[in-house]
Amino acid sequence: MALNFASWTCPLPLRNYPTIVMGHGSGGKMMADLIEHLFAPQFSNDLLAQLGDSTVIDLRQIADGGSGAIGNQRLAFTTDSFVVSPLVFPGGDIGELAVNGTVNDLAMSGARPLFLSAGFIIEEGLPMETLGQIVASVAQACRKAGVQLVAGDTKVVNKGHGDGLYINTSGIGLIAPEVNIAANRAQPGDAVIVSGAMGDHGMAIMSVREGLDFETEIKSDTAPLNGLVGAMLAASRSIHCLRDATRGGLAAVLNELAAASKVGIEFEEKRVPVQPAVHAACEMLGLDPLYVANEGKLVAIVPEAEADSVLAAMRAHALGREAVRIGKVVAEHPSLVVARTGIGGSRVVDLPAGELLPRIC
Amino acid sequence: MALNFASWTCPLPLRNYPTIVMGHGSGGKMMADLIEHLFAPQFSNDLLAQLGDSTVIDLRQIADGGSGAIGNQRLAFTTDSFVVSPLVFPGGDIGELAVNGTVNDLAMSGARPLFLSAGFIIEEGLPMETLGQIVASVAQACRKAGVQLVAGDTKVVNKGHGDGLYINTSGIGLIAPEVNIAANRAQPGDAVIVSGAMGDHGMAIMSVREGLDFETEIKSDTAPLNGLVGAMLAASRSIHCLRDATRGGLAAVLNELAAASKVGIEFEEKRVPVQPAVHAACEMLGLDPLYVANEGKLVAIVPEAEADSVLAAMRAHALGREAVRIGKVVAEHPSLVVARTGIGGSRVVDLPAGELLPRIC
Repeated sequence: MALNFASWTCPLPLRNYPTIVMGHGSGGKMMADLIEHLFAPQFSNDLLAQLGDSTVIDLRQIADGGSGAIGNQRLAFTTDSFVVSPLVFPGGDIGELAVNGTVNDLAMSGARPLFLSAGFIIEEGLPMETLGQIVASVAQACRKAGVQLVAGDTKVVNKGHGDGLYINTSGIGLIAPEVNIAANRAQPGDAVIVSGAMGDHGMAIMSVREGLDFETEIKSDTAPLNGLVGAMLAASRSIHCLRDATRGGLAAVLNELAAASKVGIEFEEKRVPVQPAVHAACEMLGLDPLYVANEGKLVAIVPEAEADSVLAAMRAHALGREAVRIGKVVAEHPSLVVARTGIGGSRVVDLPAGELLPRIC
Repeated sequence: MALNFASWTCPLPLRNYPTIVMGHGSGGKMMADLIEHLFAPQFSNDLLAQLGDSTVIDLRQIADGGSGAIGNQRLAFTTDSFVVSPLVFPGGDIGELAVNGTVNDLAMSGARPLFLSAGFIIEEGLPMETLGQIVASVAQACRKAGVQLVAGDTKVVNKGHGDGLYINTSGIGLIAPEVNIAANRAQPGDAVIVSGAMGDHGMAIMSVREGLDFETEIKSDTAPLNGLVGAMLAASRSIHCLRDATRGGLAAVLNELAAASKVGIEFEEKRVPVQPAVHAACEMLGLDPLYVANEGKLVAIVPEAEADSVLAAMRAHALGREAVRIGKVVAEHPSLVVARTGIGGSRVVDLPAGELLPRIC
């Protein structure tokens, strides 16, 4: 296939790359470009175009050829590969991450996560004991999230062609009839809420990888968010958008939602909760916590009239105790995310360009 | 987790392995041991215990917490990672293989394959052109199989920690109400049918990898089998077992079905179709075509009374023109597969032990 690089939009970080570089997996502009220009043109279907954390499939629209049976459920379906390095880190491991990541992607479409698959790509030489620990961790995370692992696959690749272990998890959930959560539903006036402190997961990985030693150990926040989402949906069925702030952090999520909904988003930077240790680590490494990955935090966009009750429901849940309203959706500057800074000014918070923290999940 | 190696069953090829070796990904005894002793004890649920190519999920049994909605479909759900080397081979590439492999796993449970996800793990340095070609190939294979790719994920790993590209595909299909295909349904008296020549895919990969040059190029048989299965189900809803003969080949499939159904299987070796070029290549490399992987061939176990009509339906389909009955299910020697050899004797066709052809799919 001849790729027409010349047609790619500006800014064009990919145009100069004849090969894949780490930035293409970053969750930022380079990855968005890759998806927009290389993947999307091949797969133009309405379902993939949802661009959500999960895809919502309405089985009511599918007549089963021949049998006469017609499905009548809305399913959520999602997939995610995990290539985090190191495999075990403060607060979790790749197994727990792989379960929670897919559980969360399902929960972000308002689905009740039910069934998971796991595909293991194991590098020759991985200690059996390590694999055993991680598989046990997958199982424990499934129990904690209340999902069943129902399908699996194991492949082994030669030494030097992997990095210990990669795990793909895919998942299926069911969506209650009246729930309608999608990236394009944010409306001017809506409240923007985050469920807790930003940047823990990314800085936990970085602290191990860079051998940094902080007074307080930074632990990954990896957690299944389906319980929290259940509590939020019990408080309001009118939640417009939900996203877990993984690769690219809060900045990427807000940019994606603003672009998909063709609205502006404004938030007060000092209202974004960041743990002191994470803040210190970010300063030391020159990173902005808004761009650092989380694995147990979500962003919700909620009609203003429902914001207080959703917030109260979140704070009553163990994983939402520090939930806070950080800003609002505006009609001005569509697709732009603007932070009001501590000193009264404001700045555009753009999608990260390329590589910030490679192999964070 | 402490692994109790001492409790592992005999023969115990894994007991001596403190680390993962290539054989653990082989589709043979070593992989079966790994799954039985390391994975299965962590995930004891009825659904995973089906041990089919796909897992059948009856949504009728799931009450949706809170909403009152209850699913009422039987879904098939499956996952498979593809780590084939090289990425492009005679007759196909990793993209086509990844789609067909998962389509086939769904079809083997009697499901109509509908939705696929694809997770790409890309090694830094992969030429953009190669990625573009393979993604186009994924899309084309989806169109050919009549499925929609509805969810995707892209990760990039550092150079030297991958091998160009690994792809995981997961898939969802719907099962017609009266279809009931499972590995444990083979019954004495049933006919054993294969859909065509054995060993093409494995030998196509080997011929490239070993730089072998045969008079006739051996091409992979990668193909979506859902159309063929549809034709078979139109001829008979009473098919007992279906398996595509991938890793471990025909020998592995027959052993798995015999073990799951607690029956014996007998077949005539000379009735198993093998292309002359594949036969010659196998002889040269000292391989047995019964153990070589296929990616577009299936094994069916069918009630004797339905065998002729199923066979006729297969032969009328482009992918089943060479379908042939090779043997039968017997009550004797449960779990054992016996081949009658050309010279009037017989031999036990065992599950392959470990590594035959690494990274074949």
